[in-house]
Amino acid sequence: MSEELHPTVGLDDTVHQRTRLGIVALLDSGVSMEFGILRDTLHLTDGNLNRHLKVLEEAGLITTTRATGKGRPKTWIAITAPGRAALAAELAALRALIAAAE
Amino acid sequence: MSEELHPTVGLDDTVHQRTRLGIVALLDSGVSMEFGILRDTLHLTDGNLNRHLKVLEEAGLITTTRATGKGRPKTWIAITAPGRAALAAELAALRALIAAAE
Repeated sequence: MSEELHPTVGLDDTVHQRTRLGIVALLDSGVSMEFGILRDTLHLTDGNLNRHLKVLEEAGLITTTRATGKGRPKTWIAITAPGRAALAAELAALRALIAAAE
Repeated sequence: MSEELHPTVGLDDTVHQRTRLGIVALLDSGVSMEFGILRDTLHLTDGNLNRHLKVLEEAGLITTTRATGKGRPKTWIAITAPGRAALAAELAALRALIAAAE
């Protein structure tokens, strides 16, 4: 058996989980995204997006900011430095997996 | 908003889930793998590997064969054609995600 770990062994479900991977990948550009835009881009319900944002926020990978003003208050979501690092590690593991499959 | 779906929207948890992705990726070479080898390569417990094999087998993506002979019976696991197709679709989505992040 190889002494190198298989690329999937190091994956962290916090960012590997399908929906959360989509969220951090979209936020990685560095621009805050509004809740509704993120929800629609990823074809989610409010409840589903909220649930995954909570996991990411508790892990310190994103921040959420509620902006009140005229009309309905809006929630803006941004990635943190640890969030960016977690995404980079995830993408590196996925690249290794793809390279091994080719 | 773009009319193209975000790459993570099409991911299927049956093969995207970390451990199951490792299993189908290892089996994709086409060679059957023995249960214990698969378990050790992916750093799993017997129970954990069994649980994920059951999900993959119920989805028709792998087959398991119990070979009895001298000593303890061994279980061999192989990928099916639909399993190979599911992995190919997963890897294509991951490639698109990585390309978008670069």
